[in-house]
Amino acid sequence: MKPVCIRNIPRAPHDIVTAFAAYGVATVHEAMGRVGLMKPYMRPAWPGAQVSGSAVTVLAQPGDNWMLHVAVEQCRSGDVLVVACTADSTDGMFGDLLATSLQARGVRGLVIDAGCRDVRELQEMGFPVWSRAISAKGTVKATLGSVNIPVVCAGALVNPGDVIVADDDGVVVCPRAEAESALKAAQARHANEIKKRKRLAAGELGLDIYSMREALAKAGLVYLDHPEQS
Amino acid sequence: MKPVCIRNIPRAPHDIVTAFAAYGVATVHEAMGRVGLMKPYMRPAWPGAQVSGSAVTVLAQPGDNWMLHVAVEQCRSGDVLVVACTADSTDGMFGDLLATSLQARGVRGLVIDAGCRDVRELQEMGFPVWSRAISAKGTVKATLGSVNIPVVCAGALVNPGDVIVADDDGVVVCPRAEAESALKAAQARHANEIKKRKRLAAGELGLDIYSMREALAKAGLVYLDHPEQS
Amino acid sequence: MKPVCIRNIPRAPHDIVTAFAAYGVATVHEAMGRVGLMKPYMRPAWPGAQVSGSAVTVLAQPGDNWMLHVAVEQCRSGDVLVVACTADSTDGMFGDLLATSLQARGVRGLVIDAGCRDVRELQEMGFPVWSRAISAKGTVKATLGSVNIPVVCAGALVNPGDVIVADDDGVVVCPRAEAESALKAAQARHANEIKKRKRLAAGELGLDIYSMREALAKAGLVYLDHPEQS
Amino acid sequence: MKPVCIRNIPRAPHDIVTAFAAYGVATVHEAMGRVGLMKPYMRPAWPGAQVSGSAVTVLAQPGDNWMLHVAVEQCRSGDVLVVACTADSTDGMFGDLLATSLQARGVRGLVIDAGCRDVRELQEMGFPVWSRAISAKGTVKATLGSVNIPVVCAGALVNPGDVIVADDDGVVVCPRAEAESALKAAQARHANEIKKRKRLAAGELGLDIYSMREALAKAGLVYLDHPEQS
Amino acid sequence: MKPVCIRNIPRAPHDIVTAFAAYGVATVHEAMGRVGLMKPYMRPAWPGAQVSGSAVTVLAQPGDNWMLHVAVEQCRSGDVLVVACTADSTDGMFGDLLATSLQARGVRGLVIDAGCRDVRELQEMGFPVWSRAISAKGTVKATLGSVNIPVVCAGALVNPGDVIVADDDGVVVCPRAEAESALKAAQARHANEIKKRKRLAAGELGLDIYSMREALAKAGLVYLDHPEQS
Amino acid sequence: MKPVCIRNIPRAPHDIVTAFAAYGVATVHEAMGRVGLMKPYMRPAWPGAQVSGSAVTVLAQPGDNWMLHVAVEQCRSGDVLVVACTADSTDGMFGDLLATSLQARGVRGLVIDAGCRDVRELQEMGFPVWSRAISAKGTVKATLGSVNIPVVCAGALVNPGDVIVADDDGVVVCPRAEAESALKAAQARHANEIKKRKRLAAGELGLDIYSMREALAKAGLVYLDHPEQS
Repeated sequence: MKPVCIRNIPRAPHDIVTAFAAYGVATVHEAMGRVGLMKPYMRPAWPGAQVSGSAVTVLAQPGDNWMLHVAVEQCRSGDVLVVACTADSTDGMFGDLLATSLQARGVRGLVIDAGCRDVRELQEMGFPVWSRAISAKGTVKATLGSVNIPVVCAGALVNPGDVIVADDDGVVVCPRAEAESALKAAQARHANEIKKRKRLAAGELGLDIYSMREALAKAGLVYLDHPEQS
Repeated sequence: MKPVCIRNIPRAPHDIVTAFAAYGVATVHEAMGRVGLMKPYMRPAWPGAQVSGSAVTVLAQPGDNWMLHVAVEQCRSGDVLVVACTADSTDGMFGDLLATSLQARGVRGLVIDAGCRDVRELQEMGFPVWSRAISAKGTVKATLGSVNIPVVCAGALVNPGDVIVADDDGVVVCPRAEAESALKAAQARHANEIKKRKRLAAGELGLDIYSMREALAKAGLVYLDHPEQS
Repeated sequence: MKPVCIRNIPRAPHDIVTAFAAYGVATVHEAMGRVGLMKPYMRPAWPGAQVSGSAVTVLAQPGDNWMLHVAVEQCRSGDVLVVACTADSTDGMFGDLLATSLQARGVRGLVIDAGCRDVRELQEMGFPVWSRAISAKGTVKATLGSVNIPVVCAGALVNPGDVIVADDDGVVVCPRAEAESALKAAQARHANEIKKRKRLAAGELGLDIYSMREALAKAGLVYLDHPEQS
Repeated sequence: MKPVCIRNIPRAPHDIVTAFAAYGVATVHEAMGRVGLMKPYMRPAWPGAQVSGSAVTVLAQPGDNWMLHVAVEQCRSGDVLVVACTADSTDGMFGDLLATSLQARGVRGLVIDAGCRDVRELQEMGFPVWSRAISAKGTVKATLGSVNIPVVCAGALVNPGDVIVADDDGVVVCPRAEAESALKAAQARHANEIKKRKRLAAGELGLDIYSMREALAKAGLVYLDHPEQS
Repeated sequence: MKPVCIRNIPRAPHDIVTAFAAYGVATVHEAMGRVGLMKPYMRPAWPGAQVSGSAVTVLAQPGDNWMLHVAVEQCRSGDVLVVACTADSTDGMFGDLLATSLQARGVRGLVIDAGCRDVRELQEMGFPVWSRAISAKGTVKATLGSVNIPVVCAGALVNPGDVIVADDDGVVVCPRAEAESALKAAQARHANEIKKRKRLAAGELGLDIYSMREALAKAGLVYLDHPEQS
Repeated sequence: MKPVCIRNIPRAPHDIVTAFAAYGVATVHEAMGRVGLMKPYMRPAWPGAQVSGSAVTVLAQPGDNWMLHVAVEQCRSGDVLVVACTADSTDGMFGDLLATSLQARGVRGLVIDAGCRDVRELQEMGFPVWSRAISAKGTVKATLGSVNIPVVCAGALVNPGDVIVADDDGVVVCPRAEAESALKAAQARHANEIKKRKRLAAGELGLDIYSMREALAKAGLVYLDHPEQS
């Protein structure tokens, strides 16, 4: 693998990328047909953030954050930086200085399949990070990786320019070419859920709303009264 | 195993079930003789809730939340829904719609040996969840399980109608038949701890309060001064 | 190994020990040459605390907190209690009563390679704990260990009297003999970071601030434009 | 929980218990309706053993093997000793001396939700062990537990006298009352698999043997040729 | 995601695919520039096998092996079946019946990011499996997935037709388009290692063979004699 | 931390170091008073080896095996190389070439808190390795560490020149200064176990050999007959 930094990647239209944030990870994941999720070990460094952005991708060596500095220059306003490693690592490859630099360029957050540090400062800055670990472990700048190549991050394939959506539930990836249709599907699903929520809040049962009773009976579910009840 | 849904399970008296919440998981666990705890991987989706309730149990297939809809109908005010899976799973089998439905029936919380999602909405609703993971992974509704049979959830045996107590420290199960005596023991322990806390806050040592010095000496503990001190 | 409790351990000067807290774990770890960190599974029981103190060490049997009571008596104002176990354990070996006792002696926090409980009470008391787990599991008082011997806690060697620094990023250990020089290095690093943060916030790139471009080119990094861009 | 040792537990008929071994864990688990499995972290200390026996159960404190000595006396020829702990542990609570003692009584193996040691000696003796870990960590004899009470071992409920089946695939538990019917179901399933294996070996497809094609089409599976093929 | 089964995928030339096996995972991984490895949790179900083949890929639901039956029909002699799941699972989705069917078609092995069972039978058949777990847990046939789409398996991207190499060290994926060049690089690396091994066996040091001494000195390595030696 | 390579470390007498192997890890660990064990995740790459040797220690960066080459030169006949990393790693930092080099110098084995590869070749060579993982992941040679400084390896403190004992049960460390006394204690324990094994094989119970019955009764153990027995 030759180390390379790809410049000027294509992105989905800015307003489409931005609109995803409102619908959240679960809705977007469902709207896409239940694909695209990163592993659930990816957790927010601080709670409450909900963002969407275009992926700038990094493939780094574990414990080496040299390529993150290279990637910063390739980021634009509206991006989310996505960092994968060539082997599992929990090292704190990202902290408040890199966050300051990304924030200065309008980057909306970081997704890193490794560790981050300076958690309190990140929260004070309002810069959200999703990572597999929190660790102060310092890193070296010794070995090249690549920027803006396809990467596997926390079990999900991310191509540069894909749409990343992240919130307290985790991180989901939407391929760039499907961004518009996925957004529409998410909007439709969201509207549908509002209606269902009202009915459920009023006491209707999912068994009835989703017409499950017949299928349950057909599958063989038997209802019995507890022997102690008489 | 034939799939079955047991209706009208017996529960402990409502005021006893409710009174447990005040004493918290650690006190109830100790009062019962140090048994009944679920594994410590069961964590609250959001901090600060402390509840008790009667268990309605579900045995579900991993990644399949069909039986949760069946279970909702069996829940009453004052219950806690307890979901076990036939194999380890972190899928997000529970979210804000099911929570809305449970809350409409007066259910006090969910304990699930799998994942949950819509964490922010759950916190806004004030519906507490204890789970092994947070994950937006969507689930299917394809294969039956059972409702209100005995289940092993996070390492603990739960019979329907048992009392569940959950707080930031985790989840504990009290068998229905022992509810009254366990509650009394928890109350006694709680009262005793208040007294001890005062003495400890005043500077008395546990070594003296618990009369440990003799036992330590008998067991062979030797006190030495550090060689650098003279 | 004979069980022993060492009294009157030497500590670093009180003002030096106290001054560490201001710089945080990541800075101290870097200032020491990237050593001394505990494993990243050590997490704060509640967020936001940042402390430093002199280590009083305990080697305990898993699930047995007898020696913690012995250790309390050896603690002074400005100390941090550090508990290692002879085998991995997540049991809740520490709760609000021991915290009350430690707080009464001016101890600044607990670092335990096992579980803690009473999380809500600990936060209300303002007593910080870093642990590998939160668990209500009760413990016995049956087998001796030692106090103030060298221990390996969460992968780091801790000698009694070493300086412990802990915050939301984790826990770092500074050998007592290096405390003064490490503090100076941390202060210098901190000052340097303030300057860099300003430049990065103003939009300067790390690539330029750290003069990385030449080294990257020499290492073989190639820049290419994305094929879809023209 | 009062510590207790229950004597003279009922067991399933000896020939039925013994006959299970021939069918292995996967077949018995399937024959029972896909229940009763212990978690897959339970692994044989050495490969190739396949046993069945009546469960003598132990609930032990982690790192404390006192109750194993109590349990030995309760074991008879044809038993399997099953050890659960009150909290997760990997300590080496069992080694060649206890194995010698069990083997002298005709016990067929050990299932322990903790660690074992003396692996090479165990293999030389031909005494099989299934455990969650291999560890030389020594244990104490300080705190009581119980013998022959219901326990949760590696996620499975085990009542004393239940039938245990263990092989390279893991461990399964069959309730005593269901032993005869489960054995018959396992025998039927085994006979059926022999027929299927022949057909599959001859090149028939599962798609046809199990008549899956229609169901797949109905569920919406679409077959397409790869675009590069023409 | 629409469920789909892609037929007639392109494969690399048969002799090239077959030749990879001789060089093993570590050599092929290095020859490709240190990419393409699956996570190290992928372990052989039995030791000693070393195979290479063309990937037929499956994306399955966790705990559901319906699509494996669909995939069997798409396999040819010289293939390796690669199974990814939409969420983490350890269920025993593969056993000796499916192995019999694959072996009848000339398939060389299975790589599955889930569990397998019937380990002893698999070894007796000589059918190698690499999996994340061994588990007898039975699976359902209820929900569609896809065959021969790109999948992420154990952290590695696998396109149908890619070359899979697997041995006791793990599993590596070589993109189909790079198969010929990667094979040549592996052969060259292998030849080079034979020479080095001879020199090392004769007592030459890597420090000298790789000319490391100057670089070490330049990087700042200092040699000191131990203070106890005089 | 300044990178350093310490030469000419003191070792325990050769015959004492060598004699440890005969007693195995469990016996040595017990003889030392139940200390010195590495974590149980350290497993042999192939089964059956049992060695002892003097520790040559390495502190390496994760994924960087440069310092292993430096360490080889410091090894003598009768040594065991012990490698710790500055952060958790599973990378395959050691393979058959380094093993060839170590074997040429008379080194008896490797203990590495990271991954190893070329497992089959290592077994064919008869060179034993204990590691936390098996992984073909290639490593870089970019950043210095140290040789023959005290390290924490898999949770155990290892000073250069300490005695390492390793077998199928794991790895134990004996401080150099205690080597002679620990060896004697191991020999005594071993002799004692031979006697006990005979008595246990003859059907005597541990309850009687260790005179446990009185202590059990005093601690409160109650014997009851099973209610179904009459």
